[in-house]
Amino acid sequence: MGEINVGLLGCGTVGTGVARILIENRELLRTRIGTYINLKRVADIDIQRDRGLQFDEGVLITDAYQVVNDPSIDIIIEMIGGESIAKDLILKAIENGKQVVTANKALLASQGQTLIRAAAAKGVDLAFEASVGGCMPIVKTLRESLAGNHIESMIGILNGTCNYILTKITDEGCPFETALAEAQAQGYAEADPTLDIEGLDTAHKIAILAALGYGMEINLKDVYTEGISRIKPLDIEFADQFGYKIKLLAISKIIDQAVEARVHPTMIPSHDLLSNVSGTLNAITIRADAVGEILLYGHGAGMMPTASAVVSDIVDLARNLLFGSIGRIPTLSSQTSHIKKIPVLAMDEIRTHYYFRFEALDRPGVLSKISGILGRYGISIQSVHQKGRKSNGSVPVVMLTHRAKEADVRKALTEISGLDVVSAQPVLIRIEDERE
Amino acid sequence: MGEINVGLLGCGTVGTGVARILIENRELLRTRIGTYINLKRVADIDIQRDRGLQFDEGVLITDAYQVVNDPSIDIIIEMIGGESIAKDLILKAIENGKQVVTANKALLASQGQTLIRAAAAKGVDLAFEASVGGCMPIVKTLRESLAGNHIESMIGILNGTCNYILTKITDEGCPFETALAEAQAQGYAEADPTLDIEGLDTAHKIAILAALGYGMEINLKDVYTEGISRIKPLDIEFADQFGYKIKLLAISKIIDQAVEARVHPTMIPSHDLLSNVSGTLNAITIRADAVGEILLYGHGAGMMPTASAVVSDIVDLARNLLFGSIGRIPTLSSQTSHIKKIPVLAMDEIRTHYYFRFEALDRPGVLSKISGILGRYGISIQSVHQKGRKSNGSVPVVMLTHRAKEADVRKALTEISGLDVVSAQPVLIRIEDERE
Repeated sequence: MGEINVGLLGCGTVGTGVARILIENRELLRTRIGTYINLKRVADIDIQRDRGLQFDEGVLITDAYQVVNDPSIDIIIEMIGGESIAKDLILKAIENGKQVVTANKALLASQGQTLIRAAAAKGVDLAFEASVGGCMPIVKTLRESLAGNHIESMIGILNGTCNYILTKITDEGCPFETALAEAQAQGYAEADPTLDIEGLDTAHKIAILAALGYGMEINLKDVYTEGISRIKPLDIEFADQFGYKIKLLAISKIIDQAVEARVHPTMIPSHDLLSNVSGTLNAITIRADAVGEILLYGHGAGMMPTASAVVSDIVDLARNLLFGSIGRIPTLSSQTSHIKKIPVLAMDEIRTHYYFRFEALDRPGVLSKISGILGRYGISIQSVHQKGRKSNGSVPVVMLTHRAKEADVRKALTEISGLDVVSAQPVLIRIEDERE
Repeated sequence: MGEINVGLLGCGTVGTGVARILIENRELLRTRIGTYINLKRVADIDIQRDRGLQFDEGVLITDAYQVVNDPSIDIIIEMIGGESIAKDLILKAIENGKQVVTANKALLASQGQTLIRAAAAKGVDLAFEASVGGCMPIVKTLRESLAGNHIESMIGILNGTCNYILTKITDEGCPFETALAEAQAQGYAEADPTLDIEGLDTAHKIAILAALGYGMEINLKDVYTEGISRIKPLDIEFADQFGYKIKLLAISKIIDQAVEARVHPTMIPSHDLLSNVSGTLNAITIRADAVGEILLYGHGAGMMPTASAVVSDIVDLARNLLFGSIGRIPTLSSQTSHIKKIPVLAMDEIRTHYYFRFEALDRPGVLSKISGILGRYGISIQSVHQKGRKSNGSVPVVMLTHRAKEADVRKALTEISGLDVVSAQPVLIRIEDERE
């Protein structure tokens, strides 16, 4: 086998980054692999825009199907995004016997099984390092570096937009809306930021990681998902007083043959490394039986960091092509015959620590009413803070709990919010603190 | 090819960890690879000691050469350490066409070229993930995940013993000797701790990383190496006042076609993630053209974390054997024909920021004398702190400098230490601060 020909579908931000590395680091890549990787075709609707790159004559075309049907192309790089056309193109590329690289987390999280089965049936590789955590080598670490480990948990900051917004609220005490507007102005948040701020993007990623980490089928719908839009500076301030920071975490654990997979704002100890991951950066902590804990940190998004991960996949697949070792590493860490259906715990079954904030009338007996209800549901209070600051005649009452069951917590809070001394919907933030 | 047979040389702490994973996670490993990995032979001088493992009859033997000469064994795992017997056994294994896994950083740093050339000539793989950073997948990240990047710098905390001692001095203000004694009592430091505390172990590791990161030959003797035994609580206290922590860093950068490779106690900003790496933990930051910065964090030593890295190498080599893809990834990231000889900068040529502490008589004109000498050598002072605390009639005078050349700094300090108003050898600690 001589040189490797690749075809790129979609030349937006990350696609352009991939093209740039393939063109500008062409000689470097040859020193890695021993042969050239040729960017043979690039398909995009817009072939006029100046991308700051010098493509050879005829490389840029508008018809993506022409690329996946080109018999000279060995590897297809899908950078279109979305779930319909991208899926169709990937399946066509697989059908044509091509190796596929994608960063399409939404597609993988919702229809990964279909793609994985199609690739396995055809005997081609499907690589997706860039779908989670941008440049952090999380897929490779789970599939290769931790091959001798049973993965126990994965906890990460996997969305740079949310982390930027939370960092800004924390540092400046500004409201969520101001921080979001700033994120949009900086280009860190989309005009429609829903996918990021409501936690969906993070849910896609933890669904993929759970599949990889535990060797299980992916079920996006089983991932509990709660975003950051209701986080108030006041709660971040209280968190700080208790020695916590608030981060949007993706949390997955395997406990007694069942998997937890959830995304929500979470208080974590300020000394924790994850607490110190600021701005648009991402990080993930993996616990496993042999390594104990390891952490990866880096840019989870952005043109060049994400492109770097895509290129690492291209290099892997190119090496497999050159050495005839396609299929060398099973897509989901374990051989297909060992992929399990592991039950995912309903959110109601989760047991964790909680932070509650109630807006209560500043009146004797209020605390006793609230704690009475909590007690009846078996929720044990670890500490209570009642602040003198009044707003509209009510004061914030803040409580941290010992480990409690989510279902009990929800019932108790519903009951408490019905009390006439409680003037607003109670705030609930889960705590992840291994010290307790 | 059916099952994979491995032979383990040396069953000390890490060797036992490797055996434990191969035995206890035998089924897990089969789900990863699709076939069993058999621990066929284990050679150790002591075959009586209870290692808490059930070896099959005849597995434990005393003669390591019997293992490397056993034609049924596919992969040799060298866990003996040291530079003479280990080297001989590895070369014999290579000669016999076996794949080799080692964690022997001293051997790799001093005689890596010989081993790499022998493996290349014979067409076998030589893997050494566990030689640097324990369970952190640093070798895989450099060789595979960053394949599309030009590596620009690597800065890490790569010795858990030193990091434990420095953390202890920082947290408790105790003298170095007390912290070392505690590290020894906890089993984190050897009875003879020289290799760790004088920075040699770290030098071995950065030599290996520089070779991998830049695709170059490196001579361990070119790595400037300074340990932590002269670090005083007083300097850690001053560092704190300037917003710094002191860590033993391995620093390597490539600047204008030349490489820096140095190990020394270093002040880094307290908000830096590396500052928050405490106790025996390790971490490394890699800067590269596409990814920007990434960081890996985890246990850099210890039985099971290191064994996990060894097992990841075994899995890689087993997959190469099963798929006939030995040699798939070049040992030093780049094809042998592209390995360069890059000049390593002499320490005198380094330009960085400095912290100085002088013990000076509390007398008018002292500061002017000291700063006069610094000025003559072109060393520009960024800030000066003169503390009122007297010891033996002298006061500490602390200075931070702008970027200066090491050779000039040394000459200036020699001259300053000759002043009659300066009562002790000046203290010099380099600063790594990207903000400036």
